[in-house]
Amino acid sequence: MMRAYEVIHAKREGRAVPAEAIAELVDGFTRGEIPEYQMAAFCMAVFFRGMDAAEVAALTGAMLRSGDVLDLSDVPGAKVDKHSTGGVGDKVSLALAPLAAACGVRVPMISGRGLGHTGGTLDKLEAIPGFRVDLPVERFRALVREVGACLIGQTARLAPADRKLYALRDVTATVESIPLIAASIMSKKLAEGIDALVLDVKVGSGAFMKGLGEARELARTLAGIGRGMGKRVSALLTAMDQPLGRAVGNALEVAETVELLRGGGPADLREVTVALTAEMLVAGGVAVDLPAARAAVEAAIADGRGLAKLEEIVRAQGGDPAAIRDPARLPRAAGTYEVPSPAAGRVEAIDGEAIGLAAVALGAGRARVEDAVDPAVGLVVGKKLGDPVERGEPLCLVHHGPRSEPREAISARVARAYRIGPSIPAPRPLVIERLA
Amino acid sequence: MMRAYEVIHAKREGRAVPAEAIAELVDGFTRGEIPEYQMAAFCMAVFFRGMDAAEVAALTGAMLRSGDVLDLSDVPGAKVDKHSTGGVGDKVSLALAPLAAACGVRVPMISGRGLGHTGGTLDKLEAIPGFRVDLPVERFRALVREVGACLIGQTARLAPADRKLYALRDVTATVESIPLIAASIMSKKLAEGIDALVLDVKVGSGAFMKGLGEARELARTLAGIGRGMGKRVSALLTAMDQPLGRAVGNALEVAETVELLRGGGPADLREVTVALTAEMLVAGGVAVDLPAARAAVEAAIADGRGLAKLEEIVRAQGGDPAAIRDPARLPRAAGTYEVPSPAAGRVEAIDGEAIGLAAVALGAGRARVEDAVDPAVGLVVGKKLGDPVERGEPLCLVHHGPRSEPREAISARVARAYRIGPSIPAPRPLVIERLA
Repeated sequence: MMRAYEVIHAKREGRAVPAEAIAELVDGFTRGEIPEYQMAAFCMAVFFRGMDAAEVAALTGAMLRSGDVLDLSDVPGAKVDKHSTGGVGDKVSLALAPLAAACGVRVPMISGRGLGHTGGTLDKLEAIPGFRVDLPVERFRALVREVGACLIGQTARLAPADRKLYALRDVTATVESIPLIAASIMSKKLAEGIDALVLDVKVGSGAFMKGLGEARELARTLAGIGRGMGKRVSALLTAMDQPLGRAVGNALEVAETVELLRGGGPADLREVTVALTAEMLVAGGVAVDLPAARAAVEAAIADGRGLAKLEEIVRAQGGDPAAIRDPARLPRAAGTYEVPSPAAGRVEAIDGEAIGLAAVALGAGRARVEDAVDPAVGLVVGKKLGDPVERGEPLCLVHHGPRSEPREAISARVARAYRIGPSIPAPRPLVIERLA
Repeated sequence: MMRAYEVIHAKREGRAVPAEAIAELVDGFTRGEIPEYQMAAFCMAVFFRGMDAAEVAALTGAMLRSGDVLDLSDVPGAKVDKHSTGGVGDKVSLALAPLAAACGVRVPMISGRGLGHTGGTLDKLEAIPGFRVDLPVERFRALVREVGACLIGQTARLAPADRKLYALRDVTATVESIPLIAASIMSKKLAEGIDALVLDVKVGSGAFMKGLGEARELARTLAGIGRGMGKRVSALLTAMDQPLGRAVGNALEVAETVELLRGGGPADLREVTVALTAEMLVAGGVAVDLPAARAAVEAAIADGRGLAKLEEIVRAQGGDPAAIRDPARLPRAAGTYEVPSPAAGRVEAIDGEAIGLAAVALGAGRARVEDAVDPAVGLVVGKKLGDPVERGEPLCLVHHGPRSEPREAISARVARAYRIGPSIPAPRPLVIERLA
């Protein structure tokens, strides 16, 4: 057995650590036998040296085994989940889960909360009055079987090693490491009892991965872990060069989801949602290929089955389906104001992270884990990449609340997030790349 | 004020950390307000990113100020110390301190114990019956004034931040970082109340620094810190391609020191000792230049003043001067045996670290800090680099004791440390380089 010191030293020197040694390190850390200072030094060494596929698999496996792993083998049909690495305005899960379920895929989805500039699916769902994300595992299992989809939060018994390790990484500047990120994500996803997983790795100014190279590396690492565990995995790299859709803020994003499921909504949101849902249909074996899968998803939007399934999910999880039929019943902000453009020209660039942080400053997200969110506040992006804009014309419509930063501060944040100039930007395709 | 997280993050990204932020980090860590896991992550980031001169100075200063700084301004004359980065058979301090004192330099020397493959001055001194290295500070000050030299161990009040940090580095694989090593050394040396410091940075198989590049970098970093604090500093890079002299083991090294001070002893030991002592005389202003200084040191050997001063130091620190006059009175091992050469040829290389570890296996040194040492055991190197050797002819004479590993194990260690072959190695000069 390698001592913890030897594991740190080997990693520091760029040597691969044997799988058993990584498992012992994680097990010992979870039990409290390996001190946090050794784990912190190990994580920093990983930040600089990386990990090979066998090491990441061992790390993921050890974190997965630290808690419960759901067994959904008694639920008929293919169980498929989707994971997004997080972006601004990314409400894809809210439409994807009912659409995939409406098309015959079972969706056992365990999601997270928003942190920093990105929102979280759980916060968005909780904007629906009464919606419960803390269901017991047995209820989760029953709803996946009966409704076809259930969306809950992480339980305390799911990958506790990951939770302990993430808390340590968060205070030791070791979050931004692709193998550590990948093992963290996959240790939770693989605990869901899924057969297949669709990955949405966001790239761009509003994503954690700003560059294509690192996004591709993360996607390959995630997919490699999943396949090593015997799961079907497909991955899309999707553009996050500006907020996805127009709504940024929890209730606003639910309302935009309803628009989408009614056949409307912003084109970019619809394209990414349809592409990812189609991947789920193929991964779940309910469509023969991607064109057939896309057609099935479009049909479920057109004939209202997706919206009906969302209402069914909301009702099953304690929420008020009337708020889906009539989004005016969702929480509403105290007031609104427009942020005028300081210049005339074209929208050359939007800093998605800055827009996300403006939403946090309104109260829609969290600067720290313990913060509460205001479901009603947020902003609706009026001008998107390439749009022409006059000086004084509104860039965004802000929905503000009692805990929002003052108008001047929010307006300045939004204005700074925009670059207005003479050029017409050539946007890249929304689905940048597919790694099958 | 930068939060600890921001300091770690900045260093991780390769940015220089402001001096105040480093001071706050060290102060907070020493007070127990900055947790060990953040300091461990910081140290690992420093391992990969290094530190610039201002950062190392800030780190050293903070550790220095964490404890007492001796004020020897009431002791007349120049106070000069020497620091060696540690080697095998390095007993230079035992002769250098009395020789420098005999020539008029005051030597307030705070030394360490052996750890790993290298010996420590305190362990060597304690091989002299009765010798005390734990004198109170007032007695230390009095002996520097009256005798001209005093050699003691680190007190609990000297650079406590360094002690706490070193303990953390020792278990997080962050010892081998030049800025951290340099700050650790200098925070203790600068607490001695010295005017000048002579550095002996060892290079080669028996040293911590195996390569010339890293040794030069360490020497420059150490000298830069010292000069930044207003001290005169000179540094020699000296060869540690084989044990220095022939004796490796505490009492054996005292006996070899006495030989040297009687005008004999191995030529290599004598050359390094005279060179370093001459540096002290120049740094202390009692010799006009290095040739004059060397002549003064040689004279102090030839006329017996060095030996008389060693006897005086031993007596003043509670030791038995008779053991200096007659080294047969030093602790003696239970028995001896020779290690025969497995081959005929020339000694092409000696792995100094392996010889040092053989001495540890005999009981002469420590694998762990809490281990006790046997003063009597060790080995005397019979064949040195370039020596011709017949098959079966002794390579080393082993002095073994009750806690020594068995003869077969020791013999195998020694035999493996030697490379015997047809070539005549071209040894490099003992004093490889002088950085004035």
